[in-house]
Amino acid sequence: MKRLSLVIVGLLSVAAAQAQLQPKKQTPESSELWSPEPRIVTAGKADQSVSGFTAPSDAIVLFDGRNLDNWVLADGKSSPAPWTVSDGIMTVVPKSGNIKTKQNFGDYQLHIEWRTPAVVDGNGQGRGNSGVFMQGIYELQVLDSYNNRTYSNGQAGSIYKQTMPLVNASKGPGEWQTYDVVYTAPHFNKDGMMTIPPYITVLHNGVLVQNHTMIQGTTPYVGQPTIEPHGRGPILLQDHNNTTSFRNIWIREL
Amino acid sequence: MKRLSLVIVGLLSVAAAQAQLQPKKQTPESSELWSPEPRIVTAGKADQSVSGFTAPSDAIVLFDGRNLDNWVLADGKSSPAPWTVSDGIMTVVPKSGNIKTKQNFGDYQLHIEWRTPAVVDGNGQGRGNSGVFMQGIYELQVLDSYNNRTYSNGQAGSIYKQTMPLVNASKGPGEWQTYDVVYTAPHFNKDGMMTIPPYITVLHNGVLVQNHTMIQGTTPYVGQPTIEPHGRGPILLQDHNNTTSFRNIWIREL
Amino acid sequence: MKRLSLVIVGLLSVAAAQAQLQPKKQTPESSELWSPEPRIVTAGKADQSVSGFTAPSDAIVLFDGRNLDNWVLADGKSSPAPWTVSDGIMTVVPKSGNIKTKQNFGDYQLHIEWRTPAVVDGNGQGRGNSGVFMQGIYELQVLDSYNNRTYSNGQAGSIYKQTMPLVNASKGPGEWQTYDVVYTAPHFNKDGMMTIPPYITVLHNGVLVQNHTMIQGTTPYVGQPTIEPHGRGPILLQDHNNTTSFRNIWIREL
Amino acid sequence: MKRLSLVIVGLLSVAAAQAQLQPKKQTPESSELWSPEPRIVTAGKADQSVSGFTAPSDAIVLFDGRNLDNWVLADGKSSPAPWTVSDGIMTVVPKSGNIKTKQNFGDYQLHIEWRTPAVVDGNGQGRGNSGVFMQGIYELQVLDSYNNRTYSNGQAGSIYKQTMPLVNASKGPGEWQTYDVVYTAPHFNKDGMMTIPPYITVLHNGVLVQNHTMIQGTTPYVGQPTIEPHGRGPILLQDHNNTTSFRNIWIREL
Repeated sequence: MKRLSLVIVGLLSVAAAQAQLQPKKQTPESSELWSPEPRIVTAGKADQSVSGFTAPSDAIVLFDGRNLDNWVLADGKSSPAPWTVSDGIMTVVPKSGNIKTKQNFGDYQLHIEWRTPAVVDGNGQGRGNSGVFMQGIYELQVLDSYNNRTYSNGQAGSIYKQTMPLVNASKGPGEWQTYDVVYTAPHFNKDGMMTIPPYITVLHNGVLVQNHTMIQGTTPYVGQPTIEPHGRGPILLQDHNNTTSFRNIWIREL
Repeated sequence: MKRLSLVIVGLLSVAAAQAQLQPKKQTPESSELWSPEPRIVTAGKADQSVSGFTAPSDAIVLFDGRNLDNWVLADGKSSPAPWTVSDGIMTVVPKSGNIKTKQNFGDYQLHIEWRTPAVVDGNGQGRGNSGVFMQGIYELQVLDSYNNRTYSNGQAGSIYKQTMPLVNASKGPGEWQTYDVVYTAPHFNKDGMMTIPPYITVLHNGVLVQNHTMIQGTTPYVGQPTIEPHGRGPILLQDHNNTTSFRNIWIREL
Repeated sequence: MKRLSLVIVGLLSVAAAQAQLQPKKQTPESSELWSPEPRIVTAGKADQSVSGFTAPSDAIVLFDGRNLDNWVLADGKSSPAPWTVSDGIMTVVPKSGNIKTKQNFGDYQLHIEWRTPAVVDGNGQGRGNSGVFMQGIYELQVLDSYNNRTYSNGQAGSIYKQTMPLVNASKGPGEWQTYDVVYTAPHFNKDGMMTIPPYITVLHNGVLVQNHTMIQGTTPYVGQPTIEPHGRGPILLQDHNNTTSFRNIWIREL
Repeated sequence: MKRLSLVIVGLLSVAAAQAQLQPKKQTPESSELWSPEPRIVTAGKADQSVSGFTAPSDAIVLFDGRNLDNWVLADGKSSPAPWTVSDGIMTVVPKSGNIKTKQNFGDYQLHIEWRTPAVVDGNGQGRGNSGVFMQGIYELQVLDSYNNRTYSNGQAGSIYKQTMPLVNASKGPGEWQTYDVVYTAPHFNKDGMMTIPPYITVLHNGVLVQNHTMIQGTTPYVGQPTIEPHGRGPILLQDHNNTTSFRNIWIREL
């Protein structure tokens, strides 16, 4: 029995040695990663009722065409948003004030559709002017920039007064336009310094206008970008005294 | 006269001093940037014939549904691409070989639509497998990942064997799907080291699956990503022995 | 006199008009940013007792040459760190275990000096092997890589099994070497996905070896980088069975 | 015996099955990357004659303390640089003009040491003002910022009129200070748009003041950053009418 045991042990150790050598090869399996498993999202579709994709299953629908229940007046938290809703779209009521979402967000993907008035009135910054503010602070400009020259870092698709769009992909007055936005929030340290700045990528009507653009700071009308620490924040839409409209607004937290 | 001259000079210098003080204010104009002026691009639209946007005016249409004139067999430059074109779509002819564009590209935005076979045959990596290779080298996986578990870094939307998609936004077999890709090419130094890696952002059916993801190196089936210096390169589509189809392929150089 | 008065008035009004126009122009002041004011830090210096800079005034000194009070055994939180301290340096006690800081960190700048044994024993990965783990997870390799070929993504200055250093800036066995590290921590979402990966920049002996390198995931000996959500974490030093030494370790939270 | 044979065969087949399975497993070798091999660089050292590291073996020494052979007047290419060299240091000759390197650079690591006058004269921007311009265009500010408040985006360590330093790590007047810079050049497209912006990381006296900061455009005294396409460019040092000095300047192309 002892001899047999030795034989067995011997055979086993040969096998073990082979097993030790064998793994030296790279195998297809050695670069597979099985965990985590990406969560399933049912994508939206580009149907006739909208100009881009409808909301995916994991999106928070911020505006579905029916009411402004997810929005409040930006300057008075408890006030309902004073803009109009009609025919599935919301429209700025001039001088009623900016509106913002009740919910606050950090990193996200945002889809929003907008339309400047079909009847052109005014020029430059006075034509269909509005804005989508990331976290209530950093403005992605909304403007009728179709045959309407203004400063490059103030036209549609610009990070206002900072970074001009790579191209002008504007559609005309009265046409629906889309923004698909990927945004990651800034991080601040105890000193109030921005250790990680916000980054933004924007497709305007399906055309890349901002590619992982660093946002320098706030986007004021007058003055330089400033650094002001903040946490999560809302999506804010600007009342710039023009009757710009919006529809199909959804957001996915990353 | 001398005294008057002095008065005048005095008044002027007061005015000059004021002029010097005056500019201390920040003005709206001081943060306007008028040059360069973003080039005008006529955006495409999301119409019924396609699943995402049609080609913008500045895009190179790589496949418009009619022929494979812009494509050649990847392994033999002079050969015409051997895949089939029918009903406005191109389809892989299994074992005919990978195909690639005649033109080479650096930084770009790419739109491509793809469809895995409606009749499900096989599983895991064997189901509707193909791939879109950035610059002919870095694979964005194409796979029927609808109810079809495989390794996470090998499913649709993954940078193959590197980075899994953030979510699984797959549509089902036989349904058209879209990739909207923003890609910037790597830079290499004299040593063959990658001083700036490639970065890629991908929307899958309008849902973000890669956000400014750094590509580590090549995307082999077996083994680690490797670093191999290269210049501009083609868009390459993979024949992985499955009859996956493509349509509405366009690219914009950034 | 009247004429002169008129001249004066004329000059003044020209000056006034200029003063009115002036603010519209861009001024030096319009691009000044006065707030926040960067906090004052008294920098360290490159003196003879160390190989790089001594700790700046806002650094947490993790090891000042006297004791291991800031360190514990990695696998047993309450245990004191079992490595030796002598002549102002700490040295690995082989098989005693990895050690880590008591404090946890997010984004930081880290300075650390290390020395592999003067008497060369072993080769490849067996020579002066240790490691500095960012947040206890992501390894920056420590190795005697002087005339000691091993795999490129495993030599000194590599993100272990991921990204090789741009160059081999190693000093010889028994010589003190420095790492100056800038590290920003990853962010994870609810799904456990990495929405912002860690980034690392490393100077090795004052020479750039990693430039804003994205860290793909964990850095295991066997297998692929994996994604495992975590919060703040310690600096961990590896006991890899070699008597590698360390000194002048300080960290600044960003 | 039969039973034993069976046992043996059984064990062998188990071993064989294991050997077959084994290669499927991930092995240490499967994540090794042997090529390319990082080029060897002999690092400099932090010795007494300088304040940071001396030039590594692959650096181009731009100023070694002896002459200005590598420099010319910025506004007249053939002119020799008119600053003084004495005791191993170069010093600005006020109103003689900016100087720049004869060689042009793209991506690089730069080390430079500078000293503002020991005798303090003036304040704010008037005290030891100079600048190091990346590619002759983008200014990293040099200033005596020790107890000398000025606008935050104009103090030492700032990207001039853009991004303030994370902290103020300034040494006093008459003391040598260091900048260790990692810089990657911008890329422009045919439209003159910046598709990849410049990024800069700066250690000031060994303390991080800029971390992979995106440079927005030019850094003018008056006005906004502008976008002006360019190729490789020199290191430019500014004559701002103050007798600031420099030494130990070297650069490594990445």
